[in-house]
Amino acid sequence: MKKFSTLLLLLSYFTTNAQQNLVKYVKPIIGTEKMGHTYPGATVPFGAVQLSPETDTISYELNGKYNGDVYKYCAGYRYEDKTIVGFSQTHLSGTGHSDLGDFLIMPTQGKLQLNPGTASNPKSGFRSAFSHANEIAEAGYYKVKLDDDNILAEMTTTTRVGMQQYTFPKSDESHIILDLMSGIYNYKEKNVWTYVRVVNDTLITGFRQTNGWARTRTVYFAMSFSKPFINYGQKNYDDKQPYRGFWRKFDESKNFPEIAGKNIRMYFDFKTNEAEKIQIKFALSSVSQENALENMQAEIKDWNFEKVKENAQKQWNSELNKIVINASEDTKVNFYTAMYHTFINPTVYTDINGQYKGLDQGIHTAKDFTNYGTFSLWDTYRALHPFFNIIQPSRNNDMIKSMMAHYNQSALHMLPIWSHYGNDNWCMSGYHSVSVIADAIIKDVYKGNPNEALEACVTTAKHRNYEGIGNYMDLGFIPAEKSGISVSNTLEYAYDDWCIAQIAKKLNRQDIYEEFIKRSANWKNNFNAETGFMQPKLADGTFKSNFDVLSTHGQGFIEGNSWNYSFFVPHNPTELIEKMGGKNKFSSRLDTLFSMHLPDSFFAETEDITREGIIGGYVHGNEPAHHVAYFYNWTNESWKTQAQVRKIMKMQYKPTPDGLGGNDDCGQMSAWYIFSSLGFYPVAPGSDEYAIGSPSVNNAILTLENGKNFTVEVKNQNDKNIYVQKVILNGKVQPNLFIKHSDIVNGGNLTFYMSSKPKK
Amino acid sequence: MKKFSTLLLLLSYFTTNAQQNLVKYVKPIIGTEKMGHTYPGATVPFGAVQLSPETDTISYELNGKYNGDVYKYCAGYRYEDKTIVGFSQTHLSGTGHSDLGDFLIMPTQGKLQLNPGTASNPKSGFRSAFSHANEIAEAGYYKVKLDDDNILAEMTTTTRVGMQQYTFPKSDESHIILDLMSGIYNYKEKNVWTYVRVVNDTLITGFRQTNGWARTRTVYFAMSFSKPFINYGQKNYDDKQPYRGFWRKFDESKNFPEIAGKNIRMYFDFKTNEAEKIQIKFALSSVSQENALENMQAEIKDWNFEKVKENAQKQWNSELNKIVINASEDTKVNFYTAMYHTFINPTVYTDINGQYKGLDQGIHTAKDFTNYGTFSLWDTYRALHPFFNIIQPSRNNDMIKSMMAHYNQSALHMLPIWSHYGNDNWCMSGYHSVSVIADAIIKDVYKGNPNEALEACVTTAKHRNYEGIGNYMDLGFIPAEKSGISVSNTLEYAYDDWCIAQIAKKLNRQDIYEEFIKRSANWKNNFNAETGFMQPKLADGTFKSNFDVLSTHGQGFIEGNSWNYSFFVPHNPTELIEKMGGKNKFSSRLDTLFSMHLPDSFFAETEDITREGIIGGYVHGNEPAHHVAYFYNWTNESWKTQAQVRKIMKMQYKPTPDGLGGNDDCGQMSAWYIFSSLGFYPVAPGSDEYAIGSPSVNNAILTLENGKNFTVEVKNQNDKNIYVQKVILNGKVQPNLFIKHSDIVNGGNLTFYMSSKPKK
Repeated sequence: MKKFSTLLLLLSYFTTNAQQNLVKYVKPIIGTEKMGHTYPGATVPFGAVQLSPETDTISYELNGKYNGDVYKYCAGYRYEDKTIVGFSQTHLSGTGHSDLGDFLIMPTQGKLQLNPGTASNPKSGFRSAFSHANEIAEAGYYKVKLDDDNILAEMTTTTRVGMQQYTFPKSDESHIILDLMSGIYNYKEKNVWTYVRVVNDTLITGFRQTNGWARTRTVYFAMSFSKPFINYGQKNYDDKQPYRGFWRKFDESKNFPEIAGKNIRMYFDFKTNEAEKIQIKFALSSVSQENALENMQAEIKDWNFEKVKENAQKQWNSELNKIVINASEDTKVNFYTAMYHTFINPTVYTDINGQYKGLDQGIHTAKDFTNYGTFSLWDTYRALHPFFNIIQPSRNNDMIKSMMAHYNQSALHMLPIWSHYGNDNWCMSGYHSVSVIADAIIKDVYKGNPNEALEACVTTAKHRNYEGIGNYMDLGFIPAEKSGISVSNTLEYAYDDWCIAQIAKKLNRQDIYEEFIKRSANWKNNFNAETGFMQPKLADGTFKSNFDVLSTHGQGFIEGNSWNYSFFVPHNPTELIEKMGGKNKFSSRLDTLFSMHLPDSFFAETEDITREGIIGGYVHGNEPAHHVAYFYNWTNESWKTQAQVRKIMKMQYKPTPDGLGGNDDCGQMSAWYIFSSLGFYPVAPGSDEYAIGSPSVNNAILTLENGKNFTVEVKNQNDKNIYVQKVILNGKVQPNLFIKHSDIVNGGNLTFYMSSKPKK
Repeated sequence: MKKFSTLLLLLSYFTTNAQQNLVKYVKPIIGTEKMGHTYPGATVPFGAVQLSPETDTISYELNGKYNGDVYKYCAGYRYEDKTIVGFSQTHLSGTGHSDLGDFLIMPTQGKLQLNPGTASNPKSGFRSAFSHANEIAEAGYYKVKLDDDNILAEMTTTTRVGMQQYTFPKSDESHIILDLMSGIYNYKEKNVWTYVRVVNDTLITGFRQTNGWARTRTVYFAMSFSKPFINYGQKNYDDKQPYRGFWRKFDESKNFPEIAGKNIRMYFDFKTNEAEKIQIKFALSSVSQENALENMQAEIKDWNFEKVKENAQKQWNSELNKIVINASEDTKVNFYTAMYHTFINPTVYTDINGQYKGLDQGIHTAKDFTNYGTFSLWDTYRALHPFFNIIQPSRNNDMIKSMMAHYNQSALHMLPIWSHYGNDNWCMSGYHSVSVIADAIIKDVYKGNPNEALEACVTTAKHRNYEGIGNYMDLGFIPAEKSGISVSNTLEYAYDDWCIAQIAKKLNRQDIYEEFIKRSANWKNNFNAETGFMQPKLADGTFKSNFDVLSTHGQGFIEGNSWNYSFFVPHNPTELIEKMGGKNKFSSRLDTLFSMHLPDSFFAETEDITREGIIGGYVHGNEPAHHVAYFYNWTNESWKTQAQVRKIMKMQYKPTPDGLGGNDDCGQMSAWYIFSSLGFYPVAPGSDEYAIGSPSVNNAILTLENGKNFTVEVKNQNDKNIYVQKVILNGKVQPNLFIKHSDIVNGGNLTFYMSSKPKK
């Protein structure tokens, strides 16, 4: 009764529209150490700007070698580093590949230094030592003291504009460096072109063009200073500058307002009084300098840093209050940081006027929707987009409209695989846009034309020359000779095909349903009944010999070995269990997965994870097995789901900088945590069903866009009482450990009764 | 009487609107050998597209060395070469620096070869041997047989679209190569980025971005085939392609429609029957792929090559008929080829919808005017723009509006120096936009706001940190320590300042007039009364020692030694003559210039000209002395002007591939010829006066835009009768050897009486 009354109290508190301060539980620093690959800087929900420090950068070639590591510095910031190079405007959150890091800004004073210097000797360049003691990372706000020059750096953002505030000491030689050659990834390979126009003594505009993970990418900018600079200049680090030497009519290094090249660093000189603040607004656009300026003028009208920060945090608080939980402090920190991490991607990819640069490199206008980018779909189809279907359905609807726009602009006529900034990098396996679309159509979230969406899904799934699809269509599997990740692809295509079948069924497109429901059984073609494992098959139909069930590379898999991937039939666990010898055998096989001991060689070759990302042989740090702990629900031992899910939450999510056991992957790791904390999980997006796990909150109120509330109440929950005894939905005992999407979105109450003893 | 009646006949012929076939006198091949740097391919008057063969290209690195020479291949084509590499869409005419050469296309058949091969072994690549016997170069049309693969290549254009027609033999392996890495200039330094989208089996679009003479330049294109290709593919020649290796989900080399990189060659496969024609439309835009497509659809609606060719030649004929001459066949060829060369630049730089990419890299719309680019102003202010003020005043008005747009978009707030494709390369000395503007204002050609134009001129002329202007303003000259071309600059600034004073005078801006008329006397500061030569001065006011009057480099000059440059006071010959010791001394000094013997060392170090470009010490192949032959008119020996002008016309202009004695320089050399052929020349643009020379035509009818005709009639003119006895303007004997601009544009008749004896 006590718990219930607390919930009532919360409910009444909430319904009066007063919001709790939940921003305080968000710790953007979580995941910045080890494998999380998150960034600690400032952004607003789904913001186009991610203003965050770089503690080192692979852009700088020192002593002939790249200083740093592409993989480690995906988000630009490593918690263990002792120096900050500067603050750049764009970052990916939790990825395992690197890009962005555009427009690095660094305040300095004293003698101008245009090189970044080294981590071991930061005073040799413009970088600075810093200490975590002088660092604050909040949702929408980041602050750090730069020790070398005694400058306080603060940052906050709106959707398309970053705002920086630098508090200088008294100095006749204060500088702001704008490093246009820095970026996340090797600049020698990546930088394509940069153009800068100094419009007047407070405004500069320009663009930067890169060939990185996004192959053909241009970011336009407008940068405004709160105070006029006295002088400015640049250095061009290009190896060669055609014709420039010959017709050097100006001294282009100083106060020369038309700057262009591949590798440019600029500086702006100021005189500052003690504690004088210089503010910068930095606006982005994918379309033009003019649009960047328009974005700036629309989103930040004056020079009130505090107001911008307050607005940013108000936005965050409003988003976070969509789920109000009662839980331990650590769980609250984990939960709201996870919510934060789920709400920083995909990112807005339209200017304030609706324009954006499309996949065809033309300018498009998003009509009646906001266009989004940064679709890490192999990761996020699993739990992030299903989470959005509950808590951000309007945005998810827009995201699918964005995917449809991508499809329509694509010369390949394909839905996105892994897309950002109007480019597809085709990273990872499958074509999981179709899962996101199916889940949204099944759950009535997608408001566009579902038949057009189905056509896009079908066309994508029949793209014969994409990654083995032709073979897959002809043979029902991808021969190992044809692809290094033949098994991952076949398994994921089969699941995606099932998703397409679900849309077809809903739309009464029987022919398509039959075609794709048949394809969805293709997982069986890689299942070796003799070994009980998914294995690569040769073109002649025989299984490839010398198969290593623990290994990933060269075995037909990606980011997961056969031990993990053999469970990848999220759409048909029943038949998988049958193939694997029935419920008991299956259950004990899951036990083995979660308890086995892995040899060191496993870690040497497995990407993206360390021992921390592993439980037994179960790899939570990568995604392919994210649904697997919930598979016990299809056996007679669903209590083991509850035990394993609690174990994963405890081991893989900690409220510390090194708290994430693997790449957050644009919010997928975090979305898994949110679902699991609430006690249910979408094992097969595209179905309307959630499998019950073991909630780690005491209660939660979900405020839905349709105005309804769904509340989760957990009786007797604590670290020991992890086993579900009974589940009551709207006053009725649930007959099984599944709930429906409609149970949530129609509003209502789900009550769990917990105990320290499993209910066998 | 006979001549006069011929003229009347001509006049009546002309006024009935029937046009003569003058296109037949245009020989675009003139200037393609030795120093002319013209291209032989197809273009329309002031066309944005210049579709012309490349006979070699400096883009290709063979055996580790660049094959070819930047300077020689400015226009892509050398008459002496035996092979053609392909046909590209853009070319500069007559320049001494290289750029453009975008989108090289080559038809081949047989085994696909994606490398160009070598000149000595064209069959080692896609290039082909050709013979001048199988080559036709006309205004608006170019045709050549490609011997290696027996393919006939024909090309014609509209303003923004090139049309090609390739006649293939029967072959199952016919190809069209689209080389996107080729260009005029070293591709390793120049190529920035290329993007291609294969929209369907007849249409591709994309863009190419270069860092060449135009530093930040993007050309968008749309390419359409008359027949669907069967297959297509590409090879990427980039040294490195970030990430591409890792996520190679497609075979991007074949039938893959989204292509990007720095160095790409594509091919399109066809099957052809005997004599089957495949046509290509290739449209350009500075704004977008969409605009390129719109340009294509607006300008060439169907697949009728003959019709496009006919229209192109009709346009040419209409432009050429603005001056109908009676003269020897050779003179006609020289004259109309000169007209052709004057009318192929500046080039249209607006899309059909009025949009263009400006100097600020933003998209602008030209309202109520056509925007032009390719302003080689150091050259063309002398005679080309004055020629336009007579025969193309509407276009010249638009050109000045284009310069004003440039000024308004320039972060530097400067009028163009040498601009193309929305970039200024600041090539050469002076700020001669002001001369072009002054000449047009004085002659009532400019219809924009003259006060705004004056302000732009003044602002440009006061740009202290541009090439010594600050020193020039402070000291009245540029110290030799500060600039390698201090004397050229001071002399040219002084002339330009006089032009500004003329505008100010006309607009009653007395303060500006006084300031600039004073500055216009600064030429005196570099005049060494002791030697009688213009010489570089040191900051301390003394002349630099060790001065070589014959040398250019290191002496303070550019493209002209002191012998030539000492006459560079076009705006005040009277005072120059005084300084040089009076009329007789001056006259005999001119004699020396035209008759001196130059040492071989002179040619070793002088750029842009060979012995062919020289008469005595007078360098016609470069521009600084273009007015000098007319200076005798200010002495007592004007007959020597007549003799020298005829000599220059005869020696420097021949109806042969090697017929031009120096770079045509975007029409300046040709404009000099046209004026001189007609018997008068604008010695100081900005004044309304022309100096009389010795006409080489028998008569000429100039049809002006205002509907009036100005006729030139030359009695007894032949190769020996080169001396003017009498000039009659509208029935009245001219009292001196000068006419006014109003004498021309008010219509009328100018009759010369010639003799073989000078009138002393």
